[in-house]
Amino acid sequence: MKTILQPYRKDGGDTYASGAYAAIELIRARPEKVKTILIHSAYAGEEHLRRMCEQRRIPVVCDDRAFVRLNQKENSYVLAVCEKYEARLSPDEPHIVLVNPADMGNLGTIARAMAGFGFLHLALVTPAADIWNPKAVRASMGALFHVNVCHFESFARYRAAFPGHALFPFMLGGELELGLASRPQARPYALVFGNEAAGLDPSFAGVGTSVRIPQTGLVDSLNLAVAAAVGMYAFSSQEYAR
Amino acid sequence: MKTILQPYRKDGGDTYASGAYAAIELIRARPEKVKTILIHSAYAGEEHLRRMCEQRRIPVVCDDRAFVRLNQKENSYVLAVCEKYEARLSPDEPHIVLVNPADMGNLGTIARAMAGFGFLHLALVTPAADIWNPKAVRASMGALFHVNVCHFESFARYRAAFPGHALFPFMLGGELELGLASRPQARPYALVFGNEAAGLDPSFAGVGTSVRIPQTGLVDSLNLAVAAAVGMYAFSSQEYAR
Repeated sequence: MKTILQPYRKDGGDTYASGAYAAIELIRARPEKVKTILIHSAYAGEEHLRRMCEQRRIPVVCDDRAFVRLNQKENSYVLAVCEKYEARLSPDEPHIVLVNPADMGNLGTIARAMAGFGFLHLALVTPAADIWNPKAVRASMGALFHVNVCHFESFARYRAAFPGHALFPFMLGGELELGLASRPQARPYALVFGNEAAGLDPSFAGVGTSVRIPQTGLVDSLNLAVAAAVGMYAFSSQEYAR
Repeated sequence: MKTILQPYRKDGGDTYASGAYAAIELIRARPEKVKTILIHSAYAGEEHLRRMCEQRRIPVVCDDRAFVRLNQKENSYVLAVCEKYEARLSPDEPHIVLVNPADMGNLGTIARAMAGFGFLHLALVTPAADIWNPKAVRASMGALFHVNVCHFESFARYRAAFPGHALFPFMLGGELELGLASRPQARPYALVFGNEAAGLDPSFAGVGTSVRIPQTGLVDSLNLAVAAAVGMYAFSSQEYAR
């Protein structure tokens, strides 16, 4: 290696994906972004991964000291070093928009649900938790690399970039119950979710068709990742889309 | 206090709910299980909580040393000390059955979603992560106290105790897609979920109507809490229940 790898930094250029499963997802989804695959000498399943890397000319390095320094408490023997990237969102595909999400675990879980439900475009309105933090990557099980992520300084900036999307802000007092909100046939759409603690502020009711997830009075709200996943399920399912 | 409070232990008799919100949920849901409310001297919103405790004769203790020892990294100024309890599940209400769940955060998130979607009976098949661990309580935002939790040594023991429930095991190769699985009108039902890493073993396909959540090939599976929440949403929603 030309340079010594450093522990993860938010303002650094690289992220780390821990575990063979996440590394393989990364290599499949974004081979051009993979800088190095670090392998611990205790790793047993080396061959398949080594072959994948050879085919794509990704260097494989076995260095237990570097491994322990970078892998930080994770219980795994493979660590992929990946260049961070900013993606472009498609103007024609559905989006998930997260306004000021604060929890890295939620970001990773949402990315995993997005890949699972076929939502591949994620807009993050800053300030937002660091989606490249290895904790978020780990929570996504590597699914983050299948999702196109783009940051926006404000919701207005996002809206200016994608004026054609029908907007569905998810709010506790939303006008339509989730099962009754129909995804538009002629336009792409975006499901918009607020911060874990505060949700979306009331002004979002005016930007589109606000949606509420039916729930009892026993909780203030649902976990953000749960709410986003339930929203994606309902909008993507053929049963409810008509 | 008669006895000095100890940091949380899995085999101890008490659990701790950190944060004013969780403490208030606990007092509302299970006042008879609350032993003490510990308050840090820096807590500002004391009066409402103190009144709630007085009405229910729950001792309120201000002891910063004990607080710091017990609260473990949590960023809060209220800590409720609660006796652990084993609940009875209703033979007439829907159940959630988790077979060998391993992650405390998932348990808490699932309890929160259960309270939100009106599922108040949780069967845990052991070995299972410790649902009384303060991490799980915290992830539930106190909603855990609204849920009746009962442990079973095996799925067979659960089944023997509740032979009348229609079973819906959630499996990757389930026979019915979630939106098409109808909740029975005449019988109570149980949604059954496996372990985070392994899911349910194939034998579960024979115990009831196995259900699959539609998903792309980009992920192996969904996060357990996400899968459980999507299942609860679909089964509880009036739109999809017929």
